[in-house]
Amino acid sequence: MNTAIEALRIDGSYSIDILDQTELPGREARRRLADLESICEAIQTLRVRGAPLLGLTGACGMAIAASSDATDGGLDHAAEQLRATRPTAVDLGAAVDAALSAARAIPVAERPAALWEAARAMLARQYEVDRTIGSNGATLPGIEGSVLTHCNTGALATGAMGTALSVIQTAWEGGRLTRCFATETRPLLQGARLTMWELTQLGIPSTLLPDTAAGSLISSGKVTAVITGADRIAANGDSANKIGTYQLAVLADRHNVPMYIAAPMTTVDLACPEGDAIPIEMRSRHEVGAYKADRWTVADADAYNPAFDVTPAGLITAIVTDEGIARAPFGPSLAAMASGKPDSR
Amino acid sequence: MNTAIEALRIDGSYSIDILDQTELPGREARRRLADLESICEAIQTLRVRGAPLLGLTGACGMAIAASSDATDGGLDHAAEQLRATRPTAVDLGAAVDAALSAARAIPVAERPAALWEAARAMLARQYEVDRTIGSNGATLPGIEGSVLTHCNTGALATGAMGTALSVIQTAWEGGRLTRCFATETRPLLQGARLTMWELTQLGIPSTLLPDTAAGSLISSGKVTAVITGADRIAANGDSANKIGTYQLAVLADRHNVPMYIAAPMTTVDLACPEGDAIPIEMRSRHEVGAYKADRWTVADADAYNPAFDVTPAGLITAIVTDEGIARAPFGPSLAAMASGKPDSR
Repeated sequence: MNTAIEALRIDGSYSIDILDQTELPGREARRRLADLESICEAIQTLRVRGAPLLGLTGACGMAIAASSDATDGGLDHAAEQLRATRPTAVDLGAAVDAALSAARAIPVAERPAALWEAARAMLARQYEVDRTIGSNGATLPGIEGSVLTHCNTGALATGAMGTALSVIQTAWEGGRLTRCFATETRPLLQGARLTMWELTQLGIPSTLLPDTAAGSLISSGKVTAVITGADRIAANGDSANKIGTYQLAVLADRHNVPMYIAAPMTTVDLACPEGDAIPIEMRSRHEVGAYKADRWTVADADAYNPAFDVTPAGLITAIVTDEGIARAPFGPSLAAMASGKPDSR
Repeated sequence: MNTAIEALRIDGSYSIDILDQTELPGREARRRLADLESICEAIQTLRVRGAPLLGLTGACGMAIAASSDATDGGLDHAAEQLRATRPTAVDLGAAVDAALSAARAIPVAERPAALWEAARAMLARQYEVDRTIGSNGATLPGIEGSVLTHCNTGALATGAMGTALSVIQTAWEGGRLTRCFATETRPLLQGARLTMWELTQLGIPSTLLPDTAAGSLISSGKVTAVITGADRIAANGDSANKIGTYQLAVLADRHNVPMYIAAPMTTVDLACPEGDAIPIEMRSRHEVGAYKADRWTVADADAYNPAFDVTPAGLITAIVTDEGIARAPFGPSLAAMASGKPDSR
């Protein structure tokens, strides 16, 4: 069990303790966040990242904000601040909205404790969700060999065991998986920094590759499946995920390698009909041609830097969730899974 | 005209002056190389790089080696040292072999001057070749809009005007091209460091993208053509080029964007029947998860780091050379172009 990695600890009174992911893998720095501003800063600068962990952090942020101002006005302001940090992250918005509605239904004096308790329950539920995603996905065809993943989807992404990485960990512990290939994941290098660190912590044999080498690797026959997470899944199965996922899906399709998406049902947005309707966050041009303070390109270079791309459902073999495995046609499959849980998380 | 960028100057007596490409774009550092060891070191560490410039550097290296030992044994040793620096680079091997045969046909005393004069002639010829590639390619369909390129193929690659970048420059000067998109080109970042610098020098509007964003960009419809260079082209048109080219070709094909290869006829290896026969240089794992001294991944990470991949001829719209434009079926097309010049360069 991957209990050694705690991306977010709820151990204080209206404060949380996070592992600062911008410092990994060089340094395991933890930061205590006890006010709304520092939580917004941590989200904005990617100290915490990954769809489910952002949701959890949002819930904690609402509780912490309530501890200083639990009025309707105060909570509205906090919700607005939190949502604005990462507009594409559906889990973050949903967690913030859920906290807001829950708070409004109860007296102001009871709000801080109620929101704090809800955040604690959310973390416990995340462990259950991740464990279920892992066991649902671990026996899929292709997961028994050498799997390629992109970006980071492990404990550092969800706060528990991860999504795609929970599948990989479960398959590894079951003796089915032999190796995990991880892309570097430019521009923020989550694969090189975070996934390689997690794989090493878990004892899973791992190989890092430049994002440019995915086509070569997949065409060589060394990859038995590609599995990634998702930031938002439309009702028809189109999936927005870290920039670069789409081209991995195109390559997998061309070489008859299964392409899997692993994500909690909370990532499925039935109100969003298809991929074209998913807003794509455009990030700063300063992230391209550079890493942190180290710049490799000309001054003032223009850049194309979307945070996400959309993989059309037609390129996806299956979507692994905590409610089961969706397959084409994804529309009815996802709707059925969602309706089985009317209070879908 | 791009006469301001001189990647390699032949201005000394048995010594050359190179622009150290590992220092760009931060610093324009020139280095004088006056012995075989420093030339081999410069090739190995990519201070000089790019297929045609490597050939030119190899020819200079043979002349410089001859200036200290022009015996058969001395030249055999020099040739072996130079070939070993970059085993996949066909231009380097060919230039070294040509120098060796030319030297053996003449008395030892005449060899240094003859090889030095041959290297000078080779640089002059490179300008002519590059200019012809540029004008041959500049009017191809798609080159009139926003073109995507990969790695570096300009003056810094050939020592003259470049291959794919000569096409881009010629189209820009003809008022046809509006923008050039350049990939970062992990792991050595030649696109971010070198191509963006060249485009800026040439005044061509440019946009940098992470290698992960190519699929998103191409699928958005913003790219009217993809054009890259090649390190070796097999007789059937399969083309080995910088790692990452293959996946750009797959994406271009999927989105009906033309995919062009621009290279001198010297890059075409008729003795190599197809891509599978092209040896692929595997480079150090230390280049992945890092850039120079800055490491972003776990210690001792395993890596998959091929220098090149092979784009099958079926994904290539046309191959632009100094002898004309080859199209499918590439076998007869390339053979005819080569046989038109029995002393093909």
